Amino acid sequence: MQNLAIPESEHRNRKRELVERAKEDGYDGLVLFGALNIHYISGMYHLPTERPVALGVTDERVEAVVPRLEQEHASREDFPIDDVTTYFEYPQDDPMDRVAEMCKRLGLANGTVAVDSDGSPSRNGYAGPSLSELVPANVGVEDYITDMRETKSDAEVELIREASVWANLGHRLLQERIEVGRRPIEVRAEVEADAVKTMLDTLGDRYEMRSWANPMQCLFTTGEVTELPHSMDQTTRIERGDNIVTIVKPNVGGYTTELERTMFVGEVSDEQRTYFEIMRESQEIAIDAIEPGVEYAAVEEAVVDYYEEQGVAKYTQHHVGHNIGMEGHERPFLDVDQDGEIRSGELFTVEPGFYMPDLGGFRHSDTVLVTEDGTKTLTYYPRDLESLIV
Amino acid sequence: MQNLAIPESEHRNRKRELVERAKEDGYDGLVLFGALNIHYISGMYHLPTERPVALGVTDERVEAVVPRLEQEHASREDFPIDDVTTYFEYPQDDPMDRVAEMCKRLGLANGTVAVDSDGSPSRNGYAGPSLSELVPANVGVEDYITDMRETKSDAEVELIREASVWANLGHRLLQERIEVGRRPIEVRAEVEADAVKTMLDTLGDRYEMRSWANPMQCLFTTGEVTELPHSMDQTTRIERGDNIVTIVKPNVGGYTTELERTMFVGEVSDEQRTYFEIMRESQEIAIDAIEPGVEYAAVEEAVVDYYEEQGVAKYTQHHVGHNIGMEGHERPFLDVDQDGEIRSGELFTVEPGFYMPDLGGFRHSDTVLVTEDGTKTLTYYPRDLESLIV
Repeated sequence: MQNLAIPESEHRNRKRELVERAKEDGYDGLVLFGALNIHYISGMYHLPTERPVALGVTDERVEAVVPRLEQEHASREDFPIDDVTTYFEYPQDDPMDRVAEMCKRLGLANGTVAVDSDGSPSRNGYAGPSLSELVPANVGVEDYITDMRETKSDAEVELIREASVWANLGHRLLQERIEVGRRPIEVRAEVEADAVKTMLDTLGDRYEMRSWANPMQCLFTTGEVTELPHSMDQTTRIERGDNIVTIVKPNVGGYTTELERTMFVGEVSDEQRTYFEIMRESQEIAIDAIEPGVEYAAVEEAVVDYYEEQGVAKYTQHHVGHNIGMEGHERPFLDVDQDGEIRSGELFTVEPGFYMPDLGGFRHSDTVLVTEDGTKTLTYYPRDLESLIV
Repeated sequence: MQNLAIPESEHRNRKRELVERAKEDGYDGLVLFGALNIHYISGMYHLPTERPVALGVTDERVEAVVPRLEQEHASREDFPIDDVTTYFEYPQDDPMDRVAEMCKRLGLANGTVAVDSDGSPSRNGYAGPSLSELVPANVGVEDYITDMRETKSDAEVELIREASVWANLGHRLLQERIEVGRRPIEVRAEVEADAVKTMLDTLGDRYEMRSWANPMQCLFTTGEVTELPHSMDQTTRIERGDNIVTIVKPNVGGYTTELERTMFVGEVSDEQRTYFEIMRESQEIAIDAIEPGVEYAAVEEAVVDYYEEQGVAKYTQHHVGHNIGMEGHERPFLDVDQDGEIRSGELFTVEPGFYMPDLGGFRHSDTVLVTEDGTKTLTYYPRDLESLIV
């Protein structure tokens, strides 16, 4: 039975493509400090802290520098890393000196090196020298991997498809538990507990955790809080007549998906019904607009035209959607100012919405794969109003 | 009843101190792009995404540039922000141009400006110009706020003390639920659901969520997985005779604490008992070593001496502890290479530990406040072996 993970052969291909891109720009090789970039290229994952972790990449070799407590993660046989240098701890042991030594071994120290950042990120109290202070090389900051991540491989799509299956399950459990008088945070936490158990009991050994977080995220806000799409408040109690806006994002194999629904508690006013149907129609307009060769901007333009016609354009707070994969938001965006054309293998959240003062938010979000001749919507949870009254 | 939050007066004081530090270095003012830095100085919090958020700070004024969906968060009356500029969305509207215009209004565009990073961080597909490309000012990257956060105010200590109360509660629920045959992830998720409900029912309106995450984090690993302190694997089933290592980190008012225990399932071998007692003794040695004026390095040195005497030094994987507050790890570190002396108002996790091959990890972690004449341990969960057998 196949693990829910990117196969080693794909990591090798990614590494090859990365080096090719860098070589075209005149670089001899690369050093990566970002945890996500290291994960994408080698498969190795770790908890990012103040301790520097670096991956050196050339035509011939991939080497890692890691703190003692990541040694076993970096040394796994299924990750194509040829050599691992372990330092004990930061601030002791001057980890960036170990990175500079790795550059020498890889023949990069006197050459031209692409980095994702010039030194290790300054989180968790870390402070240290840049790589360009430590080696005579010409160091250039490049964002190749974010570009490479824009279109997804079949293996990546398969993981996002699997995550979408569990998004539908999580949302079903959420809908069953929503109840007047309860707080979103407590309902959500219960649902996440049930959902993660069901997911892991079903997937068994095929599922490997890649972070400390619960891989089932099933949150929502209620009532006037839904007027702010990024409100943190999950403590306002659910009341009859509320709008609810959900956000369900499971993680499978390091990849996520997005399923969001606007729901109503107990009863739906005419006003709520009207706005709901406008929102629902706008999502269909957006999905219908997506196909390879269409400009990203055209998708948002189609929604804006419709919203202006319906008189709700001034209540929008964000564009129509974004690419998704290893991060919850990735580029390109479905945005009037996004240059370029939609390509097969991209995945978009399609989530046009608007937020009515003193009433609430109206937004569905679905994860849509761009195929060679159109789209396939991976999240299939019901979208119609009658199915979404609790 | 007082909210569990940093009062506005303290945000004003922090802003004043920040400007003083910058002025001493010859800067006219500052622009902050980091979500944590903006939160520390103004109280304003937001979900960091691709959309730039910036805070401009001078002697006279604090201004913010935010996307539409953060407008209400930035405009709250209890946050000392004098003016908020809202752009609709990224990539449309050139948010960094709005930041450059803010610099002009604040009289910084032709001056000397300290920044926490030269432009907005490139997460979630963001790509944009640096500030120094957009304004003629001399731009210098400075990390004043991380320095300011090293010692905590009374209000900060109060929030971490409150978080520690709930850490003890979370750990108690965790201990009650651990059971042979279950997976850590499912036990943990159930406990987090119960714990967050109890915490929020008790604290009521005094508690304000500042992130989408569940503010009760009560995770653990079991068996051989505990040999890696940063293993992500919470799916290996609990077996009789296992070592368990827990990590409980609630969040109150934007501040966290850390409570970790080594526990045993059902029975304890002589070997486990011996190593447990060495670990427990090492934590007491470390806590006893902490007081104002003692070098940070001395605390780890005391532990290393003891571990060498006991023959376990080669099984350590990290230093003795770290400062804690808004981030789970902060500097300074209890590390042999950390320069300087312990100061009153610092808080440390004290967590010397070691990891025995084919047996498991041995580590307690407690959060210890440095007082004027010694320490006060904020996490009071039992540390003795008999209390930690489930």
